[in-house]
Amino acid sequence: MFKKSFLKKLAKEEEVSFTFLENQLRSGKAVIPLNNQKELSRPVAIGEGFKVKINTNIGLSSEEENLQKELTKLKEAVRCGTDAIMDLSIGGNFRSLRKKIINTSPVAVGTVPLYEAAIEAEKQKKTFEKMSFDSIWETLKRQAEDGVDFFTIHAGILQSAIKYLSQNKRTGGIVSRGGSILARWMFVNKEENPFYVNFDKILQLAKKYNISISLGDALRPGAISDASDNLQFFELHVLGELVKKCRKKNVQVMVEGPGHIPLDEIEMNVRLEKKICHQAPFYVLGPLTTDIAAGYDHITSAIGGALAAQHGADFLCVVTPAEHLRHPDINDIREGVVASKIAAHSVDLLRFKKEREKDKVISSHRAQRKWKDIFPLTLEQNKAKKYHKKIKSSDICTMCGNFCSLKIIEKCGLLDTTGSTKSK
Amino acid sequence: MFKKSFLKKLAKEEEVSFTFLENQLRSGKAVIPLNNQKELSRPVAIGEGFKVKINTNIGLSSEEENLQKELTKLKEAVRCGTDAIMDLSIGGNFRSLRKKIINTSPVAVGTVPLYEAAIEAEKQKKTFEKMSFDSIWETLKRQAEDGVDFFTIHAGILQSAIKYLSQNKRTGGIVSRGGSILARWMFVNKEENPFYVNFDKILQLAKKYNISISLGDALRPGAISDASDNLQFFELHVLGELVKKCRKKNVQVMVEGPGHIPLDEIEMNVRLEKKICHQAPFYVLGPLTTDIAAGYDHITSAIGGALAAQHGADFLCVVTPAEHLRHPDINDIREGVVASKIAAHSVDLLRFKKEREKDKVISSHRAQRKWKDIFPLTLEQNKAKKYHKKIKSSDICTMCGNFCSLKIIEKCGLLDTTGSTKSK
Repeated sequence: MFKKSFLKKLAKEEEVSFTFLENQLRSGKAVIPLNNQKELSRPVAIGEGFKVKINTNIGLSSEEENLQKELTKLKEAVRCGTDAIMDLSIGGNFRSLRKKIINTSPVAVGTVPLYEAAIEAEKQKKTFEKMSFDSIWETLKRQAEDGVDFFTIHAGILQSAIKYLSQNKRTGGIVSRGGSILARWMFVNKEENPFYVNFDKILQLAKKYNISISLGDALRPGAISDASDNLQFFELHVLGELVKKCRKKNVQVMVEGPGHIPLDEIEMNVRLEKKICHQAPFYVLGPLTTDIAAGYDHITSAIGGALAAQHGADFLCVVTPAEHLRHPDINDIREGVVASKIAAHSVDLLRFKKEREKDKVISSHRAQRKWKDIFPLTLEQNKAKKYHKKIKSSDICTMCGNFCSLKIIEKCGLLDTTGSTKSK
Repeated sequence: MFKKSFLKKLAKEEEVSFTFLENQLRSGKAVIPLNNQKELSRPVAIGEGFKVKINTNIGLSSEEENLQKELTKLKEAVRCGTDAIMDLSIGGNFRSLRKKIINTSPVAVGTVPLYEAAIEAEKQKKTFEKMSFDSIWETLKRQAEDGVDFFTIHAGILQSAIKYLSQNKRTGGIVSRGGSILARWMFVNKEENPFYVNFDKILQLAKKYNISISLGDALRPGAISDASDNLQFFELHVLGELVKKCRKKNVQVMVEGPGHIPLDEIEMNVRLEKKICHQAPFYVLGPLTTDIAAGYDHITSAIGGALAAQHGADFLCVVTPAEHLRHPDINDIREGVVASKIAAHSVDLLRFKKEREKDKVISSHRAQRKWKDIFPLTLEQNKAKKYHKKIKSSDICTMCGNFCSLKIIEKCGLLDTTGSTKSK
């Protein structure tokens, strides 16, 4: 699947042994999203035993069609440390944007091919409900050739689930966009999910291009009161079966997860996914630990994401402050990426010596007020630089004035400064 | 300590039974910070079995002396839902500010009386190292008479700890401002901690005014690499003894805690405090789960605070994005308070039916795009209102354009709308 030299280099970057990386890939506990038509300057491994990775969603909406803005978001997300980009365009000149993203992104690029098929059906047949698998298939092929590294495929939502949902209604219904499109399609056409029916064919294409499949959770809870319900777990079992199918065909696969989940159900959700889906990497969309914080859902999601990652989630999807409210702008993207990076790093430092060392070094600099050394090591340094205010360029900042605990303690000679020297 | 009618009213607001409130107060598992010289329009109980409470720090620094600005912060913090305010002034016209805060705050007001004593010593003797217990005592009396509801008293840092620290240096040293002032004082004067030595006298004053004692953690870790070290836990044991002394004298007491703590040590820290400090309410300053996110430490702290509260922490101190960088402005205060409220509510909804109902109602409105009903129920509605962008006042927002999962699902009749109707 991958060349030995490539894996050796990646293992080094991931701070694991080559053998470990090989074993995790072989067992399916980790994936490397990378279309074999191209290379990436920053490929990553996602899965158990690796640093927690994050993905940032960008893309055109039918109401926001500025290509340049989306490319600027890509750049900002990469600067702030995203490990992957999903182009979730649902309007505008999406094909041109996708090509530009793939050409410029140093990190893996994912898509939800269903969107393009739905847009085409709207254009040609005036309604996405008339979309055929043939057009889905054309989309899949086009995107594979373009060089997309991973596809979100909502193959787990079945007619039986729609029937169940009609008798057991939910507060949030279906909040997955792909899920809702498919549910409506299945509801109107009375046919089974076309991605489920044609899954083997899709796997052949994925195999040909080494595209990783990310099994979408069409039925993820979009409200705390829908969390961990039968629908969610029914779909999870279907995804577990599909994971097996992928493995049989040697296609890399990960599984997407919730959503809105209360704090005390996050660990269970992660353990359940790992069990039911045969240890496939878990890609969580949050989880958001409350529904009432619109405008601040990057924080809600950082709480849930940190906890999920601590218990084994491998890949966090960035949620921005714009979630539930509007198409995110570049500031939203930055705030969201940083929040997710905080969650990821908070877990990485528990597992990787070098990650923990970063905290020690920055704290050592901080204790000695070596601001110039602090900034470059800060997760996102522009804000820190802007915020830090010295007074008359002296060693006094506006926070504590004359009563700076750091300076007071320094006078007593009670500081360990080895962290700071080590970094030199 | 409190009138029955007052407790009955408070029990109702806290959604617990009167008997439960009485029992928790009697056993010391909960406190109600409230100076008996005055009343509060929004008093709260802090402790086991109650909703998680949050405190916001404001105050003048020697470099930021605008009283009006601090009073505006108080107002904003209260609007966003703070349950207490600490005036941590260390400069300017601090006495005037304190009186104004106490006169206008609907929520309990706390202070660190040591600061005033240190400022006075700087003024009169040119150095805080010459501060005497007499001046500390005068300060305590003055603040008690002013109507302060709770005092942070750093009585747990002892000479033995300073000696230990000089041989076992820390990356972050002592980051507690009160702790550093006392450490320096003890280091220079070679005397024992004056708050520890005179603790019984302080308790008499606290008893007289029903001031709650918040035992400060002078030795809290200010860096991940100092977390859960011997110094921190040595002090915790001293605090445990002091809790007993408070209880003997019928003085309400809570215990302050870290600080910078890695995710996987948070639960242990909470359990340990509850054990060593005889189930006294736990007031955490964070915990921050990484050191490298200056500018975004409200998020770092929301992660740690949520986890701490889930495992039993009762009172969260707001950390703003300005932490480690500058004196916070009003926007920092808002961002910080909202982040802490998210952490608190994420835990409250696990325990209180009415809190969980809030999530259901807002999600039900959201599924039906009833924006006018959503905003007032949002944790902080101004940002949500500003963010939400409709297109041509139609039922399309910039996020999903024509592919709105909520609208698609509505067409299928798959929504449970009971949450929305209940709220009418």
